[in-house]
Amino acid sequence: MSDGVRAFVPGHVTGFFTVDRDDDPTKAGSRGGGIALSDGVSMTVEPAPETTVTLDGETIEMAAVEHVLSTLRADARVTAETPLPLGAGFGVSGAMALGTALATNAALDRGLSYNELVTIAHGAEVKAGTGLGDVVAQARGGVPLRLEPGGPQHNYVDAVPDWTRVEYYTLGELSTPDVVGGDTEALTTAGERALSMVVEEPTLDSFTRASRQFSREAGLLTESVRDVVTTVTEAGGDAAMAMLGETVFAVGTGLTDAGYDARSSAVYPAGATLDT
Amino acid sequence: MSDGVRAFVPGHVTGFFTVDRDDDPTKAGSRGGGIALSDGVSMTVEPAPETTVTLDGETIEMAAVEHVLSTLRADARVTAETPLPLGAGFGVSGAMALGTALATNAALDRGLSYNELVTIAHGAEVKAGTGLGDVVAQARGGVPLRLEPGGPQHNYVDAVPDWTRVEYYTLGELSTPDVVGGDTEALTTAGERALSMVVEEPTLDSFTRASRQFSREAGLLTESVRDVVTTVTEAGGDAAMAMLGETVFAVGTGLTDAGYDARSSAVYPAGATLDT
Repeated sequence: MSDGVRAFVPGHVTGFFTVDRDDDPTKAGSRGGGIALSDGVSMTVEPAPETTVTLDGETIEMAAVEHVLSTLRADARVTAETPLPLGAGFGVSGAMALGTALATNAALDRGLSYNELVTIAHGAEVKAGTGLGDVVAQARGGVPLRLEPGGPQHNYVDAVPDWTRVEYYTLGELSTPDVVGGDTEALTTAGERALSMVVEEPTLDSFTRASRQFSREAGLLTESVRDVVTTVTEAGGDAAMAMLGETVFAVGTGLTDAGYDARSSAVYPAGATLDT
Repeated sequence: MSDGVRAFVPGHVTGFFTVDRDDDPTKAGSRGGGIALSDGVSMTVEPAPETTVTLDGETIEMAAVEHVLSTLRADARVTAETPLPLGAGFGVSGAMALGTALATNAALDRGLSYNELVTIAHGAEVKAGTGLGDVVAQARGGVPLRLEPGGPQHNYVDAVPDWTRVEYYTLGELSTPDVVGGDTEALTTAGERALSMVVEEPTLDSFTRASRQFSREAGLLTESVRDVVTTVTEAGGDAAMAMLGETVFAVGTGLTDAGYDARSSAVYPAGATLDT
């Protein structure tokens, strides 16, 4: 019998993004588009004398979670489970930061609002260098289009009005800090172009097309991901690469139709919540 | 076999609000707080030679729905069902306006974004005079705090981070146009005070307390609603009046604990969606 507080945060595959730096981590972040997934992170937070973080039974270090707990002046046992792979473009670290913020606020009666907690988790992810836009997207749900960077006080988020089946297939990991920490000018230009395409035509078709174009223009498309995307296209489907991981996502049944043993999920309509 | 598009929009009980007029209906609206409910409106929109609107099997006139269809240059058969009573403070007309916007956009490939559709539905409700803030709240879900009035391009929405059981009990109807169309200075002052209380302490307890205070200060509390609220309080619960209807809502099981045959619902975490 645990008196911990439980949270659920959707996963988030990013299709395209920009890097918008700022000295203030609540203003820094990224613009871009992604899909919140019904596969997400389920977690429990219990106040404890010392902070420990467990993901799928393994003790891990996760800077974003530690930053959140330190901002909330808390030590806690954070226990998380997810069907999503870490480091493969699903926003697992963002989910853990956001879930920790929501659950710790409730467990310790910190009296903060939803947006304040999102701001804390977003700033923690940015400081940790593990993500720029996942937290904001995971706080909203759906198919968010982040038109301005930063936390809720600074950004502007719209969405593609579609809630359909989504499949994904992971080949391996990519390091977010390695990509985001380097020269990102070309990446940002490609991200702006992709975002404009989807703003012009806010559908999942154009979202997938823009994501494909972004992965090429930003120079992030790996050979193995390109092979899968091509195979899906040849089978009549539509797929693109998830940022940042060696992961392919497809709207509808594109991956299974092409013969891949893909995991089936769906657009998750809500943002992060506590289980009550 | 119908080729209509189906939408679900949560109900919304308003606890307190202001009236913020503007010549531009996308800037007009209200600030305030409410609860999105898992009881909502399920609807189907099918393009048709002539517009008809049916709610729970009865043909009705609903100006907000007609404004939405006219903005989208569409005629449609709109069929809606809901467990919520009309005119009793649950945002049924806002739900129908928003659901019509989302479903018509999909049925006729209008290519608009989520926020654009919310803006159209919000403007339609404001023009119809049947609501000021429900649409924006129903587009978000949760326990929205509308800190700035208007549609998504102009407003700022935060939320109480709680997702719990909610009960409601309806005694009768109140006319939104009658209240909102009159002198609203005292009401707006009371609404601002209530909103400040909940911003200061964003919990469902303070939300219910602020709602109770608002209904008294705005002079909207009816005798029969007051009796129910008092009975719930005496039984150890916590309840307040829903704006604008002769409806009492309670967090948790306050109404059934006090012996009322109340309907049980829950905070609905997501905004309006299409069924896919």
